[in-house]
Amino acid sequence: MADIDSPYPDSLGKLVEVFARLPGVGKRSAERMAFYFLKCGKEEAMDFAFAIRDLRKNLRSCTICFNLAEGEICAICSNPARDDSQLCVVEMPRDVIAIEKTGSYRGLYHVILGRISPIEGIEPDDLKIKELFIRIENGDFEEIIIATNPTAEGDATASYLADKIHPLNIKVSRLARGISAGTEIEFAGLANLQSAFLGRSKI
Amino acid sequence: MADIDSPYPDSLGKLVEVFARLPGVGKRSAERMAFYFLKCGKEEAMDFAFAIRDLRKNLRSCTICFNLAEGEICAICSNPARDDSQLCVVEMPRDVIAIEKTGSYRGLYHVILGRISPIEGIEPDDLKIKELFIRIENGDFEEIIIATNPTAEGDATASYLADKIHPLNIKVSRLARGISAGTEIEFAGLANLQSAFLGRSKI
Repeated sequence: MADIDSPYPDSLGKLVEVFARLPGVGKRSAERMAFYFLKCGKEEAMDFAFAIRDLRKNLRSCTICFNLAEGEICAICSNPARDDSQLCVVEMPRDVIAIEKTGSYRGLYHVILGRISPIEGIEPDDLKIKELFIRIENGDFEEIIIATNPTAEGDATASYLADKIHPLNIKVSRLARGISAGTEIEFAGLANLQSAFLGRSKI
Repeated sequence: MADIDSPYPDSLGKLVEVFARLPGVGKRSAERMAFYFLKCGKEEAMDFAFAIRDLRKNLRSCTICFNLAEGEICAICSNPARDDSQLCVVEMPRDVIAIEKTGSYRGLYHVILGRISPIEGIEPDDLKIKELFIRIENGDFEEIIIATNPTAEGDATASYLADKIHPLNIKVSRLARGISAGTEIEFAGLANLQSAFLGRSKI
């Protein structure tokens, strides 16, 4: 603390440093957050540390749909109340969370873990697309809803998937463009996502 | 995740919940922060969890000045290069950090851990004021700089201390009111704090 460059005691400085790595957190906010742990009870601090540890320890990819799962199979795939005639294809687990928040959809999901991007060298084989078609062939889906992001790459991925699903004689739809172009599904907002789900169109 | 009210898997929901408890962090930011731990390496997540644990394990009150310390005695009290003829009295450890950042002061500190506040029932005996006077009597200080916050309670605390130090024939000073009234020292900003230190006046 004698050093002008580091006014913090070591343990506090370390915590400020790790908090400042979080998205959207500057040095000043990181300091406020670190101070919080000096004031809060020991139990609460441990609660926090354990929550981070447990996330890494407990969360894995669902072996069916590649959504986040606490065990082998995620809470959605293992829920018998979900409608197994509908399958919604999304890029990432965070898109599942955003759609679940709307309460507009009660079917199943398939997370392809990315989008086709020739520029970044991401080919269909790098995504969980092979697994998607194994599911479609073995399942009894009446509708595949493609909910990739409304970006150039998301659109290209949707077209690629639609072209491969059409010959299978299953209805394919995309979310209505109630979502404004360029917006990520994750940040689209409840109302936009809800109308997008209701206005989805066959493609 | 099947429940509309909780779109997150348990471990992720728990982490969102704990992050949302931090000052200045809303539900949306908490979610972004929690997602960070899904993407970052395992080592980095553990780094984070350990930083929180270590803060609580390693940090204590310096037995001399009541600043934050990694061991028995803080880095400032144990630094022989600090000027032991000056003693700066502050309310809280975060004030020490703010002043250290200015690089304007090379003396020692005494943290009284609060301020006198009749409304909140905080009397001089509830603070580390007795310990301050034991230090002053046993030390060889030429100047006591009172750096309590420029608030009604901080001012009252400063007057109380000045009244008790005057009979001891030691110079007492306060930070110049370069700091605008009502601002906490912690948030005063580098430049304001620097000029406040330079323009401090005898009281």
